[in-house]
Amino acid sequence: MGSKLSIIVFSGTTDKILSAGVLSQAAAAMGSEVNIFVTFWGLLSFTKGEKKMMLPKEFEHMGQAMMEGMAREHVKPWYEMIKEAKEFGAKVYACSMACGVMGIKREDLDPIVDDMVGAAYFLQQAEGGQTLFI
Amino acid sequence: MGSKLSIIVFSGTTDKILSAGVLSQAAAAMGSEVNIFVTFWGLLSFTKGEKKMMLPKEFEHMGQAMMEGMAREHVKPWYEMIKEAKEFGAKVYACSMACGVMGIKREDLDPIVDDMVGAAYFLQQAEGGQTLFI
Amino acid sequence: MGSKLSIIVFSGTTDKILSAGVLSQAAAAMGSEVNIFVTFWGLLSFTKGEKKMMLPKEFEHMGQAMMEGMAREHVKPWYEMIKEAKEFGAKVYACSMACGVMGIKREDLDPIVDDMVGAAYFLQQAEGGQTLFI
Repeated sequence: MGSKLSIIVFSGTTDKILSAGVLSQAAAAMGSEVNIFVTFWGLLSFTKGEKKMMLPKEFEHMGQAMMEGMAREHVKPWYEMIKEAKEFGAKVYACSMACGVMGIKREDLDPIVDDMVGAAYFLQQAEGGQTLFI
Repeated sequence: MGSKLSIIVFSGTTDKILSAGVLSQAAAAMGSEVNIFVTFWGLLSFTKGEKKMMLPKEFEHMGQAMMEGMAREHVKPWYEMIKEAKEFGAKVYACSMACGVMGIKREDLDPIVDDMVGAAYFLQQAEGGQTLFI
Repeated sequence: MGSKLSIIVFSGTTDKILSAGVLSQAAAAMGSEVNIFVTFWGLLSFTKGEKKMMLPKEFEHMGQAMMEGMAREHVKPWYEMIKEAKEFGAKVYACSMACGVMGIKREDLDPIVDDMVGAAYFLQQAEGGQTLFI
């Protein structure tokens, strides 16, 4: 991903947030600048409090097997992976417009979130790198 | 996103099309070249006639709250945002192969669509920028 | 897409794998370097044996019409498109971590898969190009 990887975490299902965790941790550990922009359904997992497991309806029946497989393989929870990415310098932003729509205030956000910013700010940050919409 | 942002609008749910609207409007307003390539389920919202609200099954129960939040925050409908992006020069293309599969003819497409093109043409347009698959 | 297109095939629904097939075939035929990284639900379609049709729950009712449309338009199955992309040099990788979680061994993978690699390796391969998360 060269020097910069930006990830738009739009989908709120846990499988995709896990994938954002894996990619951001791997990219940050390799020395890339990593920016995560959490928006829409993604925000449901970035507020304070318990992180609820959610899966796409068509794969819901496989959730239990996935959980067991992750435990057996010692895959870290996505939250830990993003924390590790942050130790390497990754930044986590919450979309201000989506927070407004969902009635989420700055103080409701999980401390893993660095700041609340707009889409234009994020696009500027992402400039010159690669961006994934997850 | 540097000088060019291309967006493949594949998913047909309204949440994701809204996100395509926000990103294309923001990028175009910042002076980026913006190309939107609408394909598969995305095409369901780019034909003439009423735009039906559709959400991923696992988040369907939150649709009403989202609609109310958007009204409260004065978030424009995605259609308006793409129209604004077009005023800044954004282009909207419909995938010719997917139109064929879905039985959609040129004259069935919403006037917001500039042209019907193939995937190879779109990939060429996207060259040298960033591309999001939404 | 310039000289390099990388595709992360995360979603396991057939519609999105078809899209990965179309894009990788088109990009490879245009002379781009194409790398496909199959992970999570995507792996369900890259093991040996029959490829099951799966669609997002909210579009399931349109599956039959889509199949008929594809037959009418002579759209090739995604498997054939990826094979064609491979003839132009595309590579298909399976995510080693996700294979572990799902209990998939090297010998369970479809012969279309070239190798089993980690996310860090894939990110390095993707460097300097464009990457889509599908």
